[in-house]
Order: sequence, then C-alpha cells, then structure tokens
Amino acid sequence: MPRSKKSAAPNWTRKHLLGLEDMTAQEILTVLDRADAYLPCVTQARPCPPTLKDRTVLNLFCEDSTRTRTSFTFAAERLGARVFQFHAATSSLNKKESLIDTARNIEAMGLDAIVIRHQERGAPHRLAEAVACSVLNAGDNAHEHPTQALLDMLTIRRRLGRLDGLTLALVGDVRHSRVARSNFFGFSKFASRVICVGPPVFLQALDVKAETATDLGAVLPECDAVMMLRVQFERHESVQFNVDEYIRGYQLTPARLARARPGAIVLHPGPVNRGVELTNEVADGPQSVILFQTTCGVAVRMACLELCIGALDRERRSRTAQARRDRRG
Amino acid sequence: MPRSKKSAAPNWTRKHLLGLEDMTAQEILTVLDRADAYLPCVTQARPCPPTLKDRTVLNLFCEDSTRTRTSFTFAAERLGARVFQFHAATSSLNKKESLIDTARNIEAMGLDAIVIRHQERGAPHRLAEAVACSVLNAGDNAHEHPTQALLDMLTIRRRLGRLDGLTLALVGDVRHSRVARSNFFGFSKFASRVICVGPPVFLQALDVKAETATDLGAVLPECDAVMMLRVQFERHESVQFNVDEYIRGYQLTPARLARARPGAIVLHPGPVNRGVELTNEVADGPQSVILFQTTCGVAVRMACLELCIGALDRERRSRTAQARRDRRG
Amino acid sequence: MPRSKKSAAPNWTRKHLLGLEDMTAQEILTVLDRADAYLPCVTQARPCPPTLKDRTVLNLFCEDSTRTRTSFTFAAERLGARVFQFHAATSSLNKKESLIDTARNIEAMGLDAIVIRHQERGAPHRLAEAVACSVLNAGDNAHEHPTQALLDMLTIRRRLGRLDGLTLALVGDVRHSRVARSNFFGFSKFASRVICVGPPVFLQALDVKAETATDLGAVLPECDAVMMLRVQFERHESVQFNVDEYIRGYQLTPARLARARPGAIVLHPGPVNRGVELTNEVADGPQSVILFQTTCGVAVRMACLELCIGALDRERRSRTAQARRDRRG
Repeated sequence: MPRSKKSAAPNWTRKHLLGLEDMTAQEILTVLDRADAYLPCVTQARPCPPTLKDRTVLNLFCEDSTRTRTSFTFAAERLGARVFQFHAATSSLNKKESLIDTARNIEAMGLDAIVIRHQERGAPHRLAEAVACSVLNAGDNAHEHPTQALLDMLTIRRRLGRLDGLTLALVGDVRHSRVARSNFFGFSKFASRVICVGPPVFLQALDVKAETATDLGAVLPECDAVMMLRVQFERHESVQFNVDEYIRGYQLTPARLARARPGAIVLHPGPVNRGVELTNEVADGPQSVILFQTTCGVAVRMACLELCIGALDRERRSRTAQARRDRRG
Repeated sequence: MPRSKKSAAPNWTRKHLLGLEDMTAQEILTVLDRADAYLPCVTQARPCPPTLKDRTVLNLFCEDSTRTRTSFTFAAERLGARVFQFHAATSSLNKKESLIDTARNIEAMGLDAIVIRHQERGAPHRLAEAVACSVLNAGDNAHEHPTQALLDMLTIRRRLGRLDGLTLALVGDVRHSRVARSNFFGFSKFASRVICVGPPVFLQALDVKAETATDLGAVLPECDAVMMLRVQFERHESVQFNVDEYIRGYQLTPARLARARPGAIVLHPGPVNRGVELTNEVADGPQSVILFQTTCGVAVRMACLELCIGALDRERRSRTAQARRDRRG
Repeated sequence: MPRSKKSAAPNWTRKHLLGLEDMTAQEILTVLDRADAYLPCVTQARPCPPTLKDRTVLNLFCEDSTRTRTSFTFAAERLGARVFQFHAATSSLNKKESLIDTARNIEAMGLDAIVIRHQERGAPHRLAEAVACSVLNAGDNAHEHPTQALLDMLTIRRRLGRLDGLTLALVGDVRHSRVARSNFFGFSKFASRVICVGPPVFLQALDVKAETATDLGAVLPECDAVMMLRVQFERHESVQFNVDEYIRGYQLTPARLARARPGAIVLHPGPVNRGVELTNEVADGPQSVILFQTTCGVAVRMACLELCIGALDRERRSRTAQARRDRRG
C-alpha cells in the first residue's frame, strides 16, 4: 500500500499530465504555486522535502533531449525519487518489442511515473491508457509540451507579476512548435493575448485559433514578453526556408527589442541558435530570462511529479479499499 | 570493515550466483522465501529495508538487455545500493583492455557485487575467479541465466502453490536457451517433470538429459505450466528455420491452450514476439503470468543480491579476523 | 542559502581544481591528508559521512573515459551527492549548442560542481570563467590531469612514506601525456627529482623543464618509483613509432625492474597495454601498485570535490551577506 500522505493540493485529481489544452486555469495555478515554493530548493541548494522517497520514475525518451531529460531527472531526484533512464537506442525496442509492451514490462517492476518524449503526436496519451502509473508528456511531436509552457508561465509570473492582461509574442517556427501550442493553450485561459509572429510559411495551417502577424516590428510595441521559438533546421527540408531572410525579418536584435514595452522580457525554450533567433547581446542581456526559465523548469517538474503521483496514490488507496469491501461482500 | 549485520539466512554461504546446475534445492528455497518477503515492496511501493545501503553494484552488461539490467538496477536500488552502469560500447574495452582488467580496476574503487551478462559461456565463472567481490550471472550465452529461472520458479510457486509434482513444457528454441537450461536444472531438483518441446532442429544436440517432444498438442494435456521461449531470430542464420511453419506447429493459441490442464499458466521470459510464440489473446489473457514474472524478477534479484553480499561480508569479516590473529601470533 | 558547515580545511580557498601547475605544496598536502582519511571508506565499505548530501555534480565528459568518470562518480556518490552523466554524443551539442551554453543551462538547474574532460587544452579554464559553480579538470588534452597526479602522489606517499627526496621516472609517451605534466608539476614542489624517459621522438618539444633521458636501464638504478605511461596508439598517426622497438627499449620487464632501487614501486595510470608498457609479471607482481592507484583515485576525488564545494559554499555565503548589506544600504 502506498504510504498515506497529506497532500498539499487536495483538489488536484490528475494522475497524468498530458497537455495544457484540457487543463483548467485553477489546475495551472496549483502547479505554479507549488513550483514557486520549490524554487529556493533549486536556486539555493536548500535540501528539499523527500516527498517522493522510495518512488521510481522512468525517463522514456524516444527522441534526443538533453535539457528536458536532465530537468526531469533533477526534479525527481531532488524529491528523493530514483530515476531510471531508458535509452531507446540501446533498448529492447531493437528486438521489435512495442513501446507499450516495454513500458508495461518496466511498470511491472514497480513504477510510479513515466516521463515520455516521443516523435508521434498522442503517444503519451496512448501510453496513459495502457499503464496504471502516472504519465507525464515531455513533448510529443508538434503537439504539446506542457511542462515547458508551465515553466514559461512561472517565469513570466515571477518576472511580470501576473498571467492575465499580458501580450505575448511567439516568434518564429510556430507551425512546428509544441512549445507554442502549449503556451497558447495556457495563456488563453488567463485573458492574456498571444500573437504568433513569423513568415507566412510558418503560420500556414495552424491548428489553433491564434492571432497571427508577419511583421515583428509592428507587434513588438504591444509586447510584455517575447518568446523566440527555436528554428528547427532538422524539420525544414520540405519547407522553403532561407535563414538569411529569416534573420532579416525575425531575429531579435537590441534595436528591435528596444521597441517592445518597457521592462519586456525575452524567453527562449533553448537550445538557442545564437545569431539566428536572437543576437548574443539579447541572449545575454538584462531582459533575457532564458537561464531563469531553466531554473523554473526544475521547480515546475518537481510540482508536476509530486501532484500527479499524489493523485495516483489516492487512486491506489481507493482501489485497495474497494477491493477490501468487495472481499467482505 | 563491512558493517556487521544479522543475516536472515545464516546457512547461505554462496558469495556468487553463477548457475542453478550446482545449487541445492534448499538454496533455491532460501532465495524464493526471501524473494517472497520482498514482493510487497515491488508491487505496493512499500519502502524496503535498506539492507544494501552504502553498497555499490556494477552492472557489467556486454550484451544488450533492457529487462534484466533494469530489473537488477531496480532490485539493488530498492535495497539502498548504488548501481553503476557499465556500457561496454563506450568503455575502455575500446582501448583493448580485457574485461577482467576492467572489472578488477572498478573493483579497486570499492565494489560489493558485479552483475555480468556476457556473450561467452563461462565468462561469469572466470570473472568470479579474478575478483574478490560477489559475481551474479545475468546470462552467459546459451549456458545459464539463474535469476530468470529463479523468478520463473517464484512465479510458479505463487500461482500454483508448489514446485514439485508439476509438469512444465519449455516450448521452442530450447537449444539456444539459457532460460530453458536453468529452468531444467531448477525444476529437476523438485521432482517436477520438464518436457522440452519444439521442432527437431531446436532439440538436436541438447546438452541436458531432458525429456523431449515435437508435438505440442500431445504434450499440453499434461501441462501445469507452459513456458514459451523467445524465438531468437538473430541466432538462426545458420539453422534452417521457417517462421510460418514454426507458428503452425508451436504458436500458443487460445485453442491449443484450452487443451492444457485446468488452471495451467503461461510464461514467457520476454521480450515477446507477439504473433510468433503466442497470440495476443494468450499473451494478454487470464492464464498469462508474463507481467507477474517481471515483478517476481525484481524480488528474486533483491534476494540474490542480499544473500550473496551477506556471504561476502562474512568472508570479509573472517579474513579480517584471521589477519588480526596472524599479526598477534 | 547553502547550508552552513564547518570546513575541515579552513585555509582552502580554491573553488576550482584546474591543474597542479599553480597549486602550492601546502594545497597539495591538504588534498592528500583529506584523501588519506577517506581511504578506509573506499577499501572497507565503511559508510562515509554524507558531506555532499543534496549536492549535484555534473560529469561532463567530451572524451571517452571509463576509469576517471567512474572514479569521480563513485567519489561523489560516496559523499551523498547526486551525479548526472552528460554523454556528449547524445546531447544537445548535436544541435550545435556550445559547450559553455550547455553547461550554463544545466547549472541553472542547480549544480554544485562540473567535472570536465575535454579534448581541448584549457577548456576547463574557459568553463570555470563562464559558470558560478566549481569546475574540476578531469583531463584536457595533453595539458593537465590534476586528480591523476594527486592520486599518484597519494599512492607514493602511502607506499614510500614521503614525497620529497625521491627519484621518479616517467617512462614513455611523455610528450602526449597530461599525466606526466601534472606529476612533474606536483613532484617539483616537493624537492623530488622527476626524470622523463623515452625515445627521442617522445621527448621532443616538451614544454616543461624536466630532466630527460633516453636510456631506461641507466636511469632505473636511481629510481624509487617508475611510472609507466600509456602508449596512446590513437595519437601516433603523425609520429614515427615502431611498437617492437619501443618494447625493446622501454618495456618494464622483471629483469629491468630488478635494477631499480630496492622496494621501488611501479605505477601506471591505466588502462595498461599488457605486453607493451610492461609485462604481465610486472603488472601483477609485488612491486606493482596499479590497483592501489585506482583506490587512491576515489579517495583523492572525494577530497577534491569536498574541498572545492566547501570553498564554493563560503563564496556563496559571503555573496549572500554582501547582497544583504547592499539592500540595507
């Protein structure tokens, strides 16, 4: 039986974290409040409460990712959990076992959560239906990347003091960006305005009803926050894309940034292509919150792991109690 | 000096676990009883006693293995040990150092046990002669895979209530199977009958004196447990093997399984080739204990690590005491 | 705020460990004394004080290294720290992010130390300028490998009782050896004599003012310790090098070793090319301290991590105090 434990968020009932599209504003705030409380553990080497002691988290990364994988690992270990790294390249996937079979197998060894990154849209959702433990989406193709959007929201709330009434530009490769989609879903719940900015080829066939613009200079004067998206060169083979033109139109330079609202902040999910999405001056300048985003990422993932596993524990307990009642008759 | 600790198995004297061939029935029962006690730790996220705290285990896998490596890792960490993963591909083996030199070198950093999987028969035995710490065989070619057989035995004892007087079919690629060999050695010590079933090409030149049969349908009515072996396609280049013929003759289907004894269970060491060794209906059906095998695997490996390191501690203590006597006198 | 903790070495002020060239004799002794106290933890499975509990160390290895990486991992974990392994091959370096950006990013997740091995001379020094946490050099090209030299010094002090007044031969590929350079810097501070011995091609263009010799037989009678350097076949493409000639002139055989001073010891940083630098009889003989070097390596790295992170803590505390004073005005 999982250990009984007073939850810090009694109303949180999600065992899985799959995307921001179907989360409520209140749920998002619950994550952010909890993450806020964890920030000093990350920034000041303060010991964290071992709320996930004796728990096991599987990092099931089927696509390369240094940052997100590292961040989830740091988050889980800081709360006392063990993390098992699954490297798709050296795994039994080579023996043609399906991902679901592999995951269910490792789950039978005793798992509390699976963090999954996968190249297929919806893979985390299919996994969540096949296992009993918690599933956290660490990015599924161009669909969702919920912990990234939550860390962006925490960063913005810490730096700008609020989540509503803001104007946020998502600049660049919006069409290929799960980061953009998740942020759009997140900020839309808080009466903030999200403008997707980029060349027409990156705005075509968007599957969210976002405001769009092609002229960055015209949009900047209204922006409280500018989130530069990563140009994913590896995905542009089939798209006409000229990097010099892109830089001329969309690179965030000190001159362009000077046109944004006073105190506007610059975000980037990383890794930055320096000299493409933004210049070194902007990346390392006083308005850049890029490294603080990384710090917030660990705190947000601590909160997400703790909340989801807390909900899992409650489900396990109620199932155990039900089984006991069934036996009694 | 290793910490003194009351052992739960005072008669256990094996420092190494190399194979079932030379283990006694009593030793096997000692492992299974201990593993039984650990099962709730695996299935119910109960905290385990940290009996291997401050111990270090080296996972020395010279062949791919997700499951066994993961299972040993979970087992050791659950008891509080640290596990160091040695990846043969990125190691100094590339600099032509011998495996023994590598192992002795890491042992000099302070090791309690080495878990080894190796493509050469007898490699764990040679390693055990070269190091002072415990060595556990995690599979050496087609020779032995003792913890797999022990987990199969625990699974069967839990589900069928006993280890003796049973009839067990090992179906398929018996000749290439260390799993079959170790199970044959194990069950032979308990007055259970083991029948190796497969096409003649898989039964030729068996080096154990097992009963064999080529007609699965004729054997099934006597079986309490059917263990489907993995078809190891990667090893069949030199053997005439037709997968369609194999499926016609040996795939476990619901119709075939219906002919086995009432309550018969289906085992598979994994990873399953779905649609080859068995159908989805059987793999996911009520008689399948495949996922429970995985759970038992962690408990068995906890028991093996604890027992072997316990014996190592007693050896270290007696060597220290002897050295003290030698100095005095 | 980092936890306050009484330091065992109040005069140690180095946050980074980059090389022996600029360390004082007193600093070297501080490391060796601390390491000495840790040796029983390594050799006797004694629990270590968790002085680095809740700390995170990043192993940033951009070149293959089983031993050094393993040794740093064991050292950090033995003191209670978490170690995150960064594999350059699977990291975002592939996405062309610079090493500095990667390191600063992971640092923002909460790091106390980075252990770096890099193929470029000076890479650890450049990293140390870019991050706020501690940086330990685990080998930068043919420049320095300070923890290797410190473990050699600990080995020699334990076996020969002192560091001064000794004669030490560094035999072989001196020109490509960071081990030789760091040992030269280390022993030079203790009035010991270091002789670099090898064929002329390996002694050319040495950038340290070391005594050199080409005739091993002539040098051995003066030697208290003979350190055989690894022939790095992978680096010799551009150099004329004949392995048979090398063996005839420089392989340490029992006959040659018999000419050294009574009680002389044989060191090798590993991995040994058996049959090249030395024969099996010498490698496994009573004068070989090769495995003891490995044991000393863990103790030395425990000391280095603890001392550097201790200095980092003092720097963090004084910065926090300064910030408080600044706010008060």
